[in-house]
Amino acid sequence: MSERFEVVGIGNALVDVLARIEPAFLDAQSLTKGIMTLVDADTSERIYGAMPPAVEKSGGSCGNTMAGFAALGGKGAYIGKIRNDQLGQIFRHDMAALGVAAPVAMADDGPSTGRCLVLVTPDADRTMLTYLGAATELGPEDVDEAVIQAADCVYMEGYLFDKERAKQAFIKAADIAHAAGGQVSLTLSDPFCVGRHRDAFRALVENHVDILFANEEEILSLYETRDFDAAMQAVRAHCEIACLTRSEKGSVIVSGDAFHVIDAVPVDKVVDTTGAGDQYAAGFLYGWAKGLDLATSGRIASMMAGEVISHVGPRTESDVKAAMQKIGG
Amino acid sequence: MSERFEVVGIGNALVDVLARIEPAFLDAQSLTKGIMTLVDADTSERIYGAMPPAVEKSGGSCGNTMAGFAALGGKGAYIGKIRNDQLGQIFRHDMAALGVAAPVAMADDGPSTGRCLVLVTPDADRTMLTYLGAATELGPEDVDEAVIQAADCVYMEGYLFDKERAKQAFIKAADIAHAAGGQVSLTLSDPFCVGRHRDAFRALVENHVDILFANEEEILSLYETRDFDAAMQAVRAHCEIACLTRSEKGSVIVSGDAFHVIDAVPVDKVVDTTGAGDQYAAGFLYGWAKGLDLATSGRIASMMAGEVISHVGPRTESDVKAAMQKIGG
Repeated sequence: MSERFEVVGIGNALVDVLARIEPAFLDAQSLTKGIMTLVDADTSERIYGAMPPAVEKSGGSCGNTMAGFAALGGKGAYIGKIRNDQLGQIFRHDMAALGVAAPVAMADDGPSTGRCLVLVTPDADRTMLTYLGAATELGPEDVDEAVIQAADCVYMEGYLFDKERAKQAFIKAADIAHAAGGQVSLTLSDPFCVGRHRDAFRALVENHVDILFANEEEILSLYETRDFDAAMQAVRAHCEIACLTRSEKGSVIVSGDAFHVIDAVPVDKVVDTTGAGDQYAAGFLYGWAKGLDLATSGRIASMMAGEVISHVGPRTESDVKAAMQKIGG
Repeated sequence: MSERFEVVGIGNALVDVLARIEPAFLDAQSLTKGIMTLVDADTSERIYGAMPPAVEKSGGSCGNTMAGFAALGGKGAYIGKIRNDQLGQIFRHDMAALGVAAPVAMADDGPSTGRCLVLVTPDADRTMLTYLGAATELGPEDVDEAVIQAADCVYMEGYLFDKERAKQAFIKAADIAHAAGGQVSLTLSDPFCVGRHRDAFRALVENHVDILFANEEEILSLYETRDFDAAMQAVRAHCEIACLTRSEKGSVIVSGDAFHVIDAVPVDKVVDTTGAGDQYAAGFLYGWAKGLDLATSGRIASMMAGEVISHVGPRTESDVKAAMQKIGG
C-alpha cells in the first residue's frame, strides 16, 4: 500500500437513531439513565418501536473521532464492520464525504448494520442502547495488514473488547502496527466497559498501548482506586503517553517525566456532552500526528471537546481547522 | 372498517437526506437552486456520492402534513408506497410513533424506498432532488377502499400527478371518498408541478376537489395569470373551500360568499421555509375536521406555518397543540 495514513481507527461502526424523550420513557422501559447498554436485536426493535419519531446519522465512538480528525485536516482511515444495507451505505457515505478512507468491504449477509438508539432527555443527557449488529462480526480477518502497516498510529476503542473476535482483531492490529514501527492508541471508552474487562485492559495498557485516552472514572476503574493521582502514577509507568480527561477540570497529559495540565476550553452553555472524549482524542492525535508538542496537542484536544459539547451531537460542526490554527496547530 | 379517520393522506413516501452545502456545490453539480427536481436512481446516487455527511429523517410533503395533523391531536392515516427496507422501516416507524395509521404493506421487491436529497445553502434555502423509488409504484391497487370510506376527508399532494399510476390512485380515492360522503382535498405542491400537469389539475379542481391548498405562485400558474385576485375569483367558482397562501402576506380563505384574510404569524427569524405549506394544510384540516369556523381554522394554519419556518426541518417541533388551544382551537 503506497498511501500512508496518520491514524487508522478501528471501532464499532454504528448509525445513531436519535429521539428526544421524557424521563418517564426511561422508567417505562426500565432503562438506566445516562449510560450505554448493549442490547440484542429484539430489544433494540422493541425500544425503537416505543420511541418517538427519530433522526438517523452516522456515529460510533471511533467513527466520531476519525470524523473530527479529518475535520482538522488529518489523513485517516477507518476499519469497522457494516452490512451492505441502507444504514451501512449511510455510514460509508459519511466517512467518504469526510475524507476518511474506509477500506473495508460491506458484508452481504449476516446481521444488519449496527445502530445506537440515543434517547435525549430534556437535561441534554443521553441514554444509549447499542445493537452491535454487523459490528459483532468484526474479527481479525477484517484487519488488513497493509492498511495497518501504512499507518503512523492505530487508534482503537475499548468498546471492541465487548466481543471476543473484535478483541482478537484489536490485538492483531496492535502487533502489526508495532512490527511496522507504528504506535498503538486506545481509548477506554466507558467506566462500565472497563469494569467488564479490567484485567484484559490492564494487560493491554502494560504491554501494547503507547497512547492512552481515559476519563477520570475510567482510569479510576482501571486501577480500582478512588484517588486520581494514584491512578495517574500507575498509568505513567505503563504508557508512553496518557491523556486523562476530567470534564470541566480539564485534562492531564503525562509522558515519562513530562507532565502537562491543560485547561478545559470554557463554553457558554454545555448542551450535550456526548462525543467530548471522542473529539478530545481527535484533537490530540492530530497534534501528535503533526509532531506538535504535548501541550499544544492538548490545547487542540480541549478546543475540540469544547466545540462538541456546545451543541447537540457527537461530531464537530464549526470550522475547527481555523480554530485549531489560532491556537498554534 | 370500524375505525374512523378525520383525514387520510395520500402522498409520495420519502426519507429526507439533509446536508449543508455551499452554493458552489450546486454550480458544480449543475443544479438549480431552490426547486424540487425529480431524478432517477443513478443521478440520486451520483449527487449523494458528492454530498457532505448527511442526516436522515422521514419527510414527504403529505407525510409532513399528516405529522403536523397528528401533533395537533387529529386522527389521521397515511397511504403511500415504501419498500420493506431500512429507510421504509424508518418512515413507517416515524408515522406510527406520531400516531398516524399507515395501513399499507411494504413492498418486498422493486425499487428501494424513495428519498429526497435536501441541499441546504447558508441562506436557509433548500434545493431538493427527489428519487421517488418505491413511491413510483403507487397505484390504484394501493388505495384501500375501506380506509377511504372511513375518512371524513382524503388529502392528496399534487406531486402524485408526476406518475400516471399515482394519478389513477388519486382519482380512484377521490371517487370512493365522494361516493361515501367524504370530502376531497388537494395541495398543488409546486408551481413547476402545476406547469407540468396544468390541464389535469384544472379538470381535477373543477370536478373533484372540495378543499384546495395553493400558494400564490401555484394558483397563478394554474390559471395562467399574473393577477392574484383574478386567480382567486377563478378558483372560488370551482372549490367549496380554497386556501391560498402568500408567504409573509398571510393567506386568503375563500368559500362561496365567505371570505377571510388571515395574517401570517410573525416569527423572530425565518430559518427555513420548507414545510410551511405542508403545516399550513395540517392546521387548516385540523380546524375543518373539528368543525371550527374558517377563520379559526385559518389562524391555526398560520400558527403551524409560523412554527415550522422558525427552525430547520419541515415538521413541527414545539407543543403546537397548546399553541392551537390558545388561539381558540
